[in-house]
Amino acid sequence: MKTIRAAVMPAPNLPIELRDVPWPDLAPGAAMLRTLYSEVCGTDVHLHHGKLSGVPYPIIPGHVSIGHLAEIRGTVRDIDGAPFREGDLVTFLDVHETCGACRECLVTKQSTRCPHRKVYGITYGLNDGPLGGWADHIWMKPGVKLLRIPEGVDPLSFIAGGCGLVTSVHAAERAELRLGMSVAVLGAGPVGQAAAALAALSGAHPVIMIGAPAPRLDFALTMGATHVLPLEMPHAERVEQVHALTAGRGVDVVIEAAGDPRAVGEALDLVRDGGRVVVAGQYTDGGDTPYNPHRQINRKHVEIRGCWGCDYSHVHRALQVLAHQGAKLPWANAVTATYSLERAAEGLAAVESRAVVKAVVEPNGKQTTVSR
Amino acid sequence: MKTIRAAVMPAPNLPIELRDVPWPDLAPGAAMLRTLYSEVCGTDVHLHHGKLSGVPYPIIPGHVSIGHLAEIRGTVRDIDGAPFREGDLVTFLDVHETCGACRECLVTKQSTRCPHRKVYGITYGLNDGPLGGWADHIWMKPGVKLLRIPEGVDPLSFIAGGCGLVTSVHAAERAELRLGMSVAVLGAGPVGQAAAALAALSGAHPVIMIGAPAPRLDFALTMGATHVLPLEMPHAERVEQVHALTAGRGVDVVIEAAGDPRAVGEALDLVRDGGRVVVAGQYTDGGDTPYNPHRQINRKHVEIRGCWGCDYSHVHRALQVLAHQGAKLPWANAVTATYSLERAAEGLAAVESRAVVKAVVEPNGKQTTVSR
Amino acid sequence: MKTIRAAVMPAPNLPIELRDVPWPDLAPGAAMLRTLYSEVCGTDVHLHHGKLSGVPYPIIPGHVSIGHLAEIRGTVRDIDGAPFREGDLVTFLDVHETCGACRECLVTKQSTRCPHRKVYGITYGLNDGPLGGWADHIWMKPGVKLLRIPEGVDPLSFIAGGCGLVTSVHAAERAELRLGMSVAVLGAGPVGQAAAALAALSGAHPVIMIGAPAPRLDFALTMGATHVLPLEMPHAERVEQVHALTAGRGVDVVIEAAGDPRAVGEALDLVRDGGRVVVAGQYTDGGDTPYNPHRQINRKHVEIRGCWGCDYSHVHRALQVLAHQGAKLPWANAVTATYSLERAAEGLAAVESRAVVKAVVEPNGKQTTVSR
Amino acid sequence: MKTIRAAVMPAPNLPIELRDVPWPDLAPGAAMLRTLYSEVCGTDVHLHHGKLSGVPYPIIPGHVSIGHLAEIRGTVRDIDGAPFREGDLVTFLDVHETCGACRECLVTKQSTRCPHRKVYGITYGLNDGPLGGWADHIWMKPGVKLLRIPEGVDPLSFIAGGCGLVTSVHAAERAELRLGMSVAVLGAGPVGQAAAALAALSGAHPVIMIGAPAPRLDFALTMGATHVLPLEMPHAERVEQVHALTAGRGVDVVIEAAGDPRAVGEALDLVRDGGRVVVAGQYTDGGDTPYNPHRQINRKHVEIRGCWGCDYSHVHRALQVLAHQGAKLPWANAVTATYSLERAAEGLAAVESRAVVKAVVEPNGKQTTVSR
Repeated sequence: MKTIRAAVMPAPNLPIELRDVPWPDLAPGAAMLRTLYSEVCGTDVHLHHGKLSGVPYPIIPGHVSIGHLAEIRGTVRDIDGAPFREGDLVTFLDVHETCGACRECLVTKQSTRCPHRKVYGITYGLNDGPLGGWADHIWMKPGVKLLRIPEGVDPLSFIAGGCGLVTSVHAAERAELRLGMSVAVLGAGPVGQAAAALAALSGAHPVIMIGAPAPRLDFALTMGATHVLPLEMPHAERVEQVHALTAGRGVDVVIEAAGDPRAVGEALDLVRDGGRVVVAGQYTDGGDTPYNPHRQINRKHVEIRGCWGCDYSHVHRALQVLAHQGAKLPWANAVTATYSLERAAEGLAAVESRAVVKAVVEPNGKQTTVSR
Repeated sequence: MKTIRAAVMPAPNLPIELRDVPWPDLAPGAAMLRTLYSEVCGTDVHLHHGKLSGVPYPIIPGHVSIGHLAEIRGTVRDIDGAPFREGDLVTFLDVHETCGACRECLVTKQSTRCPHRKVYGITYGLNDGPLGGWADHIWMKPGVKLLRIPEGVDPLSFIAGGCGLVTSVHAAERAELRLGMSVAVLGAGPVGQAAAALAALSGAHPVIMIGAPAPRLDFALTMGATHVLPLEMPHAERVEQVHALTAGRGVDVVIEAAGDPRAVGEALDLVRDGGRVVVAGQYTDGGDTPYNPHRQINRKHVEIRGCWGCDYSHVHRALQVLAHQGAKLPWANAVTATYSLERAAEGLAAVESRAVVKAVVEPNGKQTTVSR
Repeated sequence: MKTIRAAVMPAPNLPIELRDVPWPDLAPGAAMLRTLYSEVCGTDVHLHHGKLSGVPYPIIPGHVSIGHLAEIRGTVRDIDGAPFREGDLVTFLDVHETCGACRECLVTKQSTRCPHRKVYGITYGLNDGPLGGWADHIWMKPGVKLLRIPEGVDPLSFIAGGCGLVTSVHAAERAELRLGMSVAVLGAGPVGQAAAALAALSGAHPVIMIGAPAPRLDFALTMGATHVLPLEMPHAERVEQVHALTAGRGVDVVIEAAGDPRAVGEALDLVRDGGRVVVAGQYTDGGDTPYNPHRQINRKHVEIRGCWGCDYSHVHRALQVLAHQGAKLPWANAVTATYSLERAAEGLAAVESRAVVKAVVEPNGKQTTVSR
Repeated sequence: MKTIRAAVMPAPNLPIELRDVPWPDLAPGAAMLRTLYSEVCGTDVHLHHGKLSGVPYPIIPGHVSIGHLAEIRGTVRDIDGAPFREGDLVTFLDVHETCGACRECLVTKQSTRCPHRKVYGITYGLNDGPLGGWADHIWMKPGVKLLRIPEGVDPLSFIAGGCGLVTSVHAAERAELRLGMSVAVLGAGPVGQAAAALAALSGAHPVIMIGAPAPRLDFALTMGATHVLPLEMPHAERVEQVHALTAGRGVDVVIEAAGDPRAVGEALDLVRDGGRVVVAGQYTDGGDTPYNPHRQINRKHVEIRGCWGCDYSHVHRALQVLAHQGAKLPWANAVTATYSLERAAEGLAAVESRAVVKAVVEPNGKQTTVSR
């Protein structure tokens, strides 16, 4: 029997195991992807600690992946109607099965809040089939939205951006980033790095990143941040420095990608009167935190926008940005190591410790960790 | 010497006194308004308790007023270039002297945050001249923006809407209220009443008001609210009732006009995913309050907008609404009593106790309180 | 064999015929609607004259319809997940099969431009099955989006609004109609009537309709228009009158629902500097027309928005408006006659001659024309 | 008597003359600018041919200028309240005296349509004083808005951008340019060049310029255009090429900066369904032109926005862009020659013939034309 080899989280906080999963029957419109890279995301750390509700363990992690189409059943087409061919290098929208038939899909038009939403590597369990990226092949169920990797986009750069890039495309859209805006980014992880990059590519200035640890801030300076401020600096001093860079007013836009609930309050202190704060980092529940609605919202005449999940357009735009603006920034340098399936747990540990910006699983790759 | 009689707050928490103020020299472009009505606003309660910073006591309160032009020096024109005549019934923009030359006026284009902003009855002291509405005449300094009361607008209805109406025009603009939206209004004071009225006149449904005390909620039902929920009802039950009225989702828009810092959190619980919350009630600092950025902002994909102050356009639109849609709602019923200057303190007490929706000073009126 | 009786256009400009069509096999998720009313739309006049390209004649016209579910195969759910029951009074989104997989559906997010879009009564031919409203039953193919008629919405009022109401919900959305705006509507047909009604329900003032013939203008005055100007009035005089109603500036918003290409130029002359024109009436190609880009666009700083087709949200909102604001206006009076299938051609002629605002086919109704 | 030397247009189509103008009395708040550079704009060609209405000839042309403050009377402050000093390098908003008191300034909030608007070098005549840039000094009347040239901005680069840069900042704002958008720019003059540059700096791709003559297109390729198409290419072929670059759809945004009325129709053929066209080039009346509202507006679901004039914020943002992103592009290369006052007419001729992208008057410069 043909099988797929996968790295599996059996349950929260248990060691990751290698398992062989049956190769699924492909219905018409389905395909099989031979995985080139799949990322290790901060979400996978949350998954491993059981921080997300409703996850059907055991599960194959890996929601953003890239690879070649190994097998296509029937005809699968791109958004312009062109059929995919075996061998094509593609990625896919991990958010599968938004229903197109509910109030969120049809009336409020925010499919990221569709209650029927399924996500590869997060809401599909091992029992649903090989539907996560930490595996040598990934089952593209009929209807999964595939995207061609445009010419000139290096696969490692794509996965280096990964989920953080796609998320920050959405955050940048919510922020209405424009040429000449001043921007602060809170958080130096993959979302923050990509947000700083997108701000820079949009012509923002200054692009101030606040985060930790120091190597991530150094990386940010290569990715478009014009200034970095460490978390060790006292809050009041950070506020003062941001004001000094912005005629004493604060920045036009803050993109919060930190995760710590207190970061939203910091964002409100850094933004100028009438500015905009996009809250993209509060993906898991970090608890309650105090704020002052008079001083931080009302008197500031400020705007705050939550940013949840992604849809097809964000992946599409991420690829366009990489294709056309990608060469300006060293995306691939975010990946300091790639991991075989056997060593996926090491990648997870590296992400959890913030030792790296991004770890990547290379399921069909060499069996050794490649240091870059 | 010609004088003006005014009710004056000598200093925070001291009794209001009657004083005679010299009639000012009118420079070209100045005018004198004979006050018909001036409102007693919640802000005046804050003024009396010293809750606003930088107020140059002693002060003549009264920022929204209506009256007849008693004297005009030179030519004073309206926005279409037509000159005002003595005897014209007018109101004026209490926010005077936004500078037109600062970063807020010229770049970010939000004159409500102009640092040079002066406000009749709030930031002008008695020493600056008769620049508050609780006086038989009000000095229109050169450059003050006068507005004609359109035909068909009853002066008592205008002052009954007053500052709350103008503020809620701004809040409705920030909320982008549209036909068919579901709306909740938090707070049953003048801003909340007017916000509910504007929502109803915009074709919103349901228009749910949450507030206290009961008579204010009863009044709201006559002003456009389709449902009212009392503050005594437990929070969870209010949330449940709002969800029951909105297909289990929450309302499209919440306008917070309550003042209590906890109201913003309630707003975030009442709004649907992807909805909008306008924070208009946090005019003074009520302290910090906890919230949950994951659950209440990020995952909800929600938008929060602070709403500070008003500009000319909001007064203009308030008058247009009264002229064209005013007859549909019993605005004037908000005024349950008018007070002579001698009894202005009683009006202030009535507002503070929430015994009335709106108290009105009638400086040239009869010397008795008129009960309605 | 069970059959469905339908009024059919065999080809452009040929007489309408009655035909019996086989009752289709219902796949799971399909349903059969017993037609209560189906409208005769201006589009049907265009269909009859062969003005639309790609229509697969013979065809059963009728794209907006209302009726009871006569049969349901499997489970069909509404947007909140509640199953429909046989006997439910429903309408459905005539625009079927937007693909959810193309650039328009996924990236630009305007499904009205989806190339895979199929429309009941327009792009489905008789050979595709009973997929038009001028028939005693209509086949709801799997995936067709059904909408419950909310309690309190009279079926005749719904069909009286019909396609024109749904279109004008979209136009009003594009126009960003708000309380207090001044609005002109060009065209006195069903779209124009509904646009005037929506403007009035949104609190616009004035709401000026320009159109013909006189009885339609009279009807408009009952539907929310505050002023009407006939087409016989010279253009310059109409412009002058609109300016006289708007402080000499022109209206904030014009909704063009006239169809004549020259109406767009008139709209640009009627709108104020910086105003907005929504072009909703140019559904068929009326040829080229001259305009002056300097005077009518650039110097005016104006905004023009095309408005094509409708999606689910517009039908949903139309029903909400009727449910909550419908009683304020005499929608049903637009229907001056209902026609049996045998006399559908008479309804079409009445619409073409503009003798009525709206003609309605009542396929299971009495065999006589009901004059109202 | 102290005088100012100026190049003057005595009347339409008469030769430019040198004249000596009295040095004005400086009231408090006024200043005198020693002109470093003043641009020769396409508008000056129109001025010379009498194409603008209401110009009070004789006139000193030159609306965008840069220089040093030679004299300040009293205190003149920047938007942050810091006083200017003699010797400061500044520019100023040529649009002077928007009134801050009319319907456009206060209600519709588009000061570019203020009827009281005065423009240096265009609506001020010689009799009003030395209020144009083609002079060794320019009178800064009290209230004129001065802007500091930020550190690092080369004066020649600023004037090379000049009025075209400021206009295209406004056009880019109306276009809502964003990272990843595809953009076409119609017109290869100063506005078009700057629009292409701003699109490139905003991360747009492709940035396609359509214009003439060839040297301007070559320059565009150095300024951010990724593709250029000459006017000699037939319209249908240009449309085809633009579609070939945009997945067959057309560009997201077109900025029309061509001036020829037919360019707007071309823009509508180049833009994708649901895209946006900004009409910025129709500054003078080029007459009527035909278009098809069905095919080019309605069915395309497109948006068209006129863009008239500029305000302070656009000059401010232009300077910010030059300060922070300016080094990326060879702005100064647009200036192929600077002209002394005596030879200003040669500069005007060079602009009229499109021999240069930009000609610059250097009133205190060497008496010879500097070829670059």
